[in-house]
Amino acid sequence: MTTVSERAELARTFIQSLVKGTAVPDRVTFDHTALGGLTVTEVAEGRVVCEMPVTDKVCNRYGTLHGGAAATLVDVVTTAALLTASPHSGVSVTLSATYVAAMPGGPGEVVVVDARVTRVGRHLANLSAELRRKATGQVVVTGTHTKFLQAYVPIRNVRFGK
Amino acid sequence: MTTVSERAELARTFIQSLVKGTAVPDRVTFDHTALGGLTVTEVAEGRVVCEMPVTDKVCNRYGTLHGGAAATLVDVVTTAALLTASPHSGVSVTLSATYVAAMPGGPGEVVVVDARVTRVGRHLANLSAELRRKATGQVVVTGTHTKFLQAYVPIRNVRFGK
Amino acid sequence: MTTVSERAELARTFIQSLVKGTAVPDRVTFDHTALGGLTVTEVAEGRVVCEMPVTDKVCNRYGTLHGGAAATLVDVVTTAALLTASPHSGVSVTLSATYVAAMPGGPGEVVVVDARVTRVGRHLANLSAELRRKATGQVVVTGTHTKFLQAYVPIRNVRFGK
Amino acid sequence: MTTVSERAELARTFIQSLVKGTAVPDRVTFDHTALGGLTVTEVAEGRVVCEMPVTDKVCNRYGTLHGGAAATLVDVVTTAALLTASPHSGVSVTLSATYVAAMPGGPGEVVVVDARVTRVGRHLANLSAELRRKATGQVVVTGTHTKFLQAYVPIRNVRFGK
Repeated sequence: MTTVSERAELARTFIQSLVKGTAVPDRVTFDHTALGGLTVTEVAEGRVVCEMPVTDKVCNRYGTLHGGAAATLVDVVTTAALLTASPHSGVSVTLSATYVAAMPGGPGEVVVVDARVTRVGRHLANLSAELRRKATGQVVVTGTHTKFLQAYVPIRNVRFGK
Repeated sequence: MTTVSERAELARTFIQSLVKGTAVPDRVTFDHTALGGLTVTEVAEGRVVCEMPVTDKVCNRYGTLHGGAAATLVDVVTTAALLTASPHSGVSVTLSATYVAAMPGGPGEVVVVDARVTRVGRHLANLSAELRRKATGQVVVTGTHTKFLQAYVPIRNVRFGK
Repeated sequence: MTTVSERAELARTFIQSLVKGTAVPDRVTFDHTALGGLTVTEVAEGRVVCEMPVTDKVCNRYGTLHGGAAATLVDVVTTAALLTASPHSGVSVTLSATYVAAMPGGPGEVVVVDARVTRVGRHLANLSAELRRKATGQVVVTGTHTKFLQAYVPIRNVRFGK
Repeated sequence: MTTVSERAELARTFIQSLVKGTAVPDRVTFDHTALGGLTVTEVAEGRVVCEMPVTDKVCNRYGTLHGGAAATLVDVVTTAALLTASPHSGVSVTLSATYVAAMPGGPGEVVVVDARVTRVGRHLANLSAELRRKATGQVVVTGTHTKFLQAYVPIRNVRFGK
């Protein structure tokens, strides 16, 4: 995995296979449980943008995007962004979310997740994400994610099934 | 909702109905999607302790508790703790998680979520949680959660179905 | 305080008088203690940019910008940014800093603090800041700051001495 | 530095020499600038407790402990706690503070800083602190601090002057 376009392809496959539930053999993961309908809309070096319909299944009891679902989106999409800039996907050290506004759920409501790499060092990666309401562009959540890059868990060892 | 035991009961019902998917009429929420098997084991004023089996559905591709699932547990169980100390369940302002160690998934693996109220003020509530591996007692995640207490969204307006 | 230029002027005066130690009568504050040489270089609605020389007095034992000084810069300059967008300066609810790279200290070394308002709501303000090394433009710290807007502590009640 | 009592002594010396301004030859650091009067009151393995008078010099314009000073206390005292459990003092990765209540300044007002090690791993250390008002015991700030343990910057290379 060396060229930019290969890394971009890896980031796309990463999200797709996790959401489809084929990332690891013979079992689904929380990504599949939690993030139905998440799709990649843009990939560049150090950046991945995704969209997800805000269905009941990811909302809270007020009918807006659940704080835990938003945190999960920060986690997963920033990790995809990291893959465009690093051979290692890392393990989470800290994750934080700031809830700026409520993201309404319901038919036609879509959340845009715009994730970026601030820096990849030798041992640590600093990532951030902004969640926006697609209909209006309003920022609804901002998040940060710090990962530790374990040299011995390269992403190429994770199989992406069909 | 005035006595301590009534509030404790409310916190129990809150978790149960969210996880069962009956908290709001005619739709499930992300709590039901994400947190299968979460149960309350202890309630006191300002504190709720829960347990959840760490099945594949809440794990990441490494087979350990997913960072997004852990963040969701911090969110939900601290909110239950808040209900033991406040008539308002609030809306999230910030949430953060520190991943201290990997929580293994698999048969028999259970995560303990120990949530506490640091302070309930007039407008804001400060909450924290510690996630531990039940088998060993090891701390795996620490989290903080700050909520804004909207006087106009009291918890009694949220229906808890059977 | 209603026009944009009046608010920009207020943000400038806010920083200057705090750093000079004249913000409140007859006593200095931690801003004066900690942030010698901090000056405003740019003000727009929802944004304040400052610069500060990285002298020994704000460095750690490794000779780079101290984590506590960086956190103080996030706190103070985001508050100035808030003043360009709100009649209330608020009180801090949460503050976080991510240390992306070491900011060298020494003669000629200057840190740029670029603070922005993400959103001002009725009760809460969400702010962020990026600290960069002036010589290279490299991001060294990113920070977030959430404030509660107390209607009863308007900024106009704080005197700014000459 | 191998025995517990040697490490406790190191933590005491660390705080004292930083605050006195003798930690590094021929220059003071931000610790000396910011934290006048900080003293160690208790040391155990994985824990350091300090006290500091809340003078004007560490207060904000409202006359209460400045958010930046509180963040600096979290940074410094958790680092001292780390020294009781690790040969490396680490570099900061993330630091966060939650402002639970205002800590009044003025004659006789003292803040207690109670810092603990949650876990020291091979590469990362997770630390936390609670700031309390000495007069009442009320929690005023909670903080977390994550450090990366650079094997090549052991604390024994930092000189502590007299």
